[in-house]
This record gives sequence, structure tokens and C-alpha cells, in this order.
Amino acid sequence: MAELHPFDRAMTFEPADGALRGRTLPEWANMVGPFGGITAAAVLRAIETHPDRRGEPLALTVNYLAPIVDGEFRIAARAVRTNRSNQHWQVELSQDGEPKTTATAVFAAQRDTWSDSELMMPEASAPESLPAPDAPAMVVWIGNYDLRFVEGAIPGPDDGPNPSSTTTLWVRDRRGRALDHAALAAQCDIFYPRTFLRLGAFGPAGTISFTVYFHADSAELAAVGDDYVLGSTRANRFTGGYFDQSAELWSRSGTLLATTHQLVYYKA
Amino acid sequence: MAELHPFDRAMTFEPADGALRGRTLPEWANMVGPFGGITAAAVLRAIETHPDRRGEPLALTVNYLAPIVDGEFRIAARAVRTNRSNQHWQVELSQDGEPKTTATAVFAAQRDTWSDSELMMPEASAPESLPAPDAPAMVVWIGNYDLRFVEGAIPGPDDGPNPSSTTTLWVRDRRGRALDHAALAAQCDIFYPRTFLRLGAFGPAGTISFTVYFHADSAELAAVGDDYVLGSTRANRFTGGYFDQSAELWSRSGTLLATTHQLVYYKA
Repeated sequence: MAELHPFDRAMTFEPADGALRGRTLPEWANMVGPFGGITAAAVLRAIETHPDRRGEPLALTVNYLAPIVDGEFRIAARAVRTNRSNQHWQVELSQDGEPKTTATAVFAAQRDTWSDSELMMPEASAPESLPAPDAPAMVVWIGNYDLRFVEGAIPGPDDGPNPSSTTTLWVRDRRGRALDHAALAAQCDIFYPRTFLRLGAFGPAGTISFTVYFHADSAELAAVGDDYVLGSTRANRFTGGYFDQSAELWSRSGTLLATTHQLVYYKA
Repeated sequence: MAELHPFDRAMTFEPADGALRGRTLPEWANMVGPFGGITAAAVLRAIETHPDRRGEPLALTVNYLAPIVDGEFRIAARAVRTNRSNQHWQVELSQDGEPKTTATAVFAAQRDTWSDSELMMPEASAPESLPAPDAPAMVVWIGNYDLRFVEGAIPGPDDGPNPSSTTTLWVRDRRGRALDHAALAAQCDIFYPRTFLRLGAFGPAGTISFTVYFHADSAELAAVGDDYVLGSTRANRFTGGYFDQSAELWSRSGTLLATTHQLVYYKA
């Protein structure tokens, strides 16, 4: 039997006391604990597979309370309210009874109505024309992705500070897994900390709170398939050890798939 | 005895069964239920006044599950985790045992470290040079604010559709109440729905999920005092009955006080 894709293995849960039991995987290791994007994806998948779930993901906010240690975790998801047109969720991921991640989410069915994309996709060379980074990945989980930097690549040892925190990149699953909402949630956290780029040096940094607004429905994600997605991010203000980072993710054909925001802790 | 300011009356709670009891006020009435900004402020204030609270607000996400009806409500706030440098909160606002609003928040003490504001304040004429809107306010709560539109004013009956969803405005408390984090949270929700501007017509619209990243600490807010704050907002994509709206709020001297994002339901 073919082995499951590492993303799908990270989304494999068993029922456990009215909740789900999952586990960290070495393929998704970050500096400390797992990649925040895979944790967000797991939280979303726990809702998606819940029998009470109605509709598709619309909004997700994940709060990272404490590092997840290697091993098993428990995810408890609860529909707090189901309205006619949407559904509100609360989720807690814990280890040994200790809360590590909390989340809220909104699910809904999109309706046919007036629509418009006001934000325009940034200009970018085709991903095939851009080289893959030649430096080894800083952390294990990056190996799951094929990244092509358009602007704001990970600084090398000889790069100095940079006046702009903007990174624009193409990203796709390295093994050709097709995009779905959980995978899109993970890709919303694909960008390395903006302090690294601004200061031209690595340092402690970690996401504290992470929000994704899903604009694409399943049909739009199916149209992307396993193609590259263009992501562009920037920070607004760095102060007192915290900065905010906003990003947009686009299909190659210019569909705005998601907008995402996060608050990040840093030391400099 | 002088009467409390309507904002502070909306933040007046009594202890009730390990939680807080508050009430809606006619001064903050929206189309349906209270102004979402005052609800967000109440949730934040419930944390700020909690005996377990440490530090100042850093991030707040409020989910609007169902309309709050006129009358009393209960706010239960709980510190889910207190770390060395930050604290994570969960809050539920309910009426008659029914959850109406859920929220998560992060509090922290800012540290002295490398800082920078990358986003620049948009150009705007001084608020004193701009007229107050001459149309009566659409909803009661707007009467608590002095608004001066720089761009993207509320459309009048003869205005047609608009290609841009951007609104830039000055806002201050009409009675000269000084800014604090709760008042800033409310002002982050000051902007009317972007569909009104794009379509040139009012229609059903309501915030579903609302996030604020607080960049200003108490000292920066004290420096603003009761002066005008410049806010600028825009939507990215309208689809399937939902759009996202991002905004920034600035002091007159150019300090980025907060960045804020919301997901909004609309009919068109």
C-alpha cells in the first residue's frame, strides 16, 4: 500500500473520548515543535471531519499558547453555534491535559451574489523561470514545499538589513498534492519571520495569533490542483517585541484564494 | 454626580457568578443589536479588569455568533495560559445561557527592542479643514463619534457604484473622552460596510469575525488623548456573500496605533 502523503499523515486522527488523537511528525518539525501552518491545518481538518460540520471554511484564528512537544496531541472541536447561513467553532489542541493551541473558526456555504476582487495580483515572473533556493532549508518542514522567491528571499550570511519586509514567492507542494482548505491554511504560514529580512539575520521569532480568511471555495481550489500559488507578505509595524504580518495568496490565474494576518513575537 | 460617559457606561459591569454582568445601552444601538465595536470593547474591558490579567492587549479576535438583544448579558473571561512574556484569554458573551459572542485575546508587556514602522500614514487634510457629514447618521451609535471623511464617505441617494472600496476618515470621541485600548478596539470597527460604497447602496451586512492587533501601548494612547485618529480601510475580495476588510488606525503624528481585519457577511 502506498504511504500517505506527509500532509495527509499529519491530518490523520483517531477518535479518543469524544475528541481526536493525532501526533506530530518529524517531516513537519520547526525550530521548536511543529510548523505552525501544519497545526492550523490540523485544527481546520478536525472541524472539517466533525459530523456536525456544515459548509466550508470562511475564517480561522489560531492562537499558539505554548510549544507542542513531539508526540501525541488531542484536538477537541465544538460547534458553538449553527445559524442558518454559518457555523461558529471553538477548538482546543492539548497535550497531557495542557492547552497548547486554541482556535475559533467560521464555516459557511457561499451563495451566488455580486462578487468582485478588488485587490490585484502582484506582478511576478513565472515560477518555472525562477530558481529553487540553493541554500539548505533552515527547518525540516520547508522540505515539503517547492519555493520560488520573486522578491525578499531568505537572507544569506552576507546580506545586510533590508528596508522592506516584503516577500513574494511561489509555493507548491513538492510531491504534487492538490490544494484543499487545510493545505491552503498551512501555506498561509509559509513566510519566514519578517524580522529576518529586515535585520538580515535570524533570531528568535514565533507566531502568537494567526488568522486566515478563505476566499476560495472547493471548486476554486480544485481548479488550482497542484499548481504553484503566489504569496506576498509584509509587516506593518515592529514594536515592543511584536510585529504584525499580512499576506495574500493567489492562484496563477489571479484568483485571490486567501488573505491572512498574524501577530509575531520577536527578539532583536 | 456627573453622569459617566456613554462609552464608560457600556463598560460598566457587576460581578455575577464568577463572571460579569453588563447591559446594552440605547446610545450604542446598531441596525440590529449593539455596534460590534462596543461589544469588542466590552470583551476587552472584561479581560483588562480581570484580576488574573497581566500586561496590555496585543491581539483580539471577536466572533459575532448571533445578535445581542437589548438587555443584560454575561461576559465570562478566562486566562487559558499565562506564559513568562504573554497571556492567552478566552471570552464568551452570552444572554440567557446562549452564546452570542466568543473571543480570544493575547496580552503581553512590550519590551525595549529594535522597532520600526514600515507602513506609512496616508496623506490626509487636517480634520479641522474637513466638514462633518451633513446627512443624519444611519444608526444611533455613530452619534458618539465625530467623523471627518477624507475619502470614501457614506454614499448618498444620488451616488452610484464606486470602483474603490477605500474609506479614509478622521474619528474622535464626540465628547472628548481620551483614547484607551478598549476605545481603540471600538474605533477599529468604525467603518461602514464596504459593499455600501462599492454598490452605492445600503444592504444587509454584518461583521462575523473581527481581529485587532494593538501596536500602541498605554503611553502612546495617552499621547493621543482625545485627538482625532486617522483610519483607512479597504476590502480585498467580495465573493459568495462574504468579504474581508482591512484597516489601519494612526495618530495624527503618524504612529500606527492598530491594524485590524474583519470578515463581513453581505447581501447584494
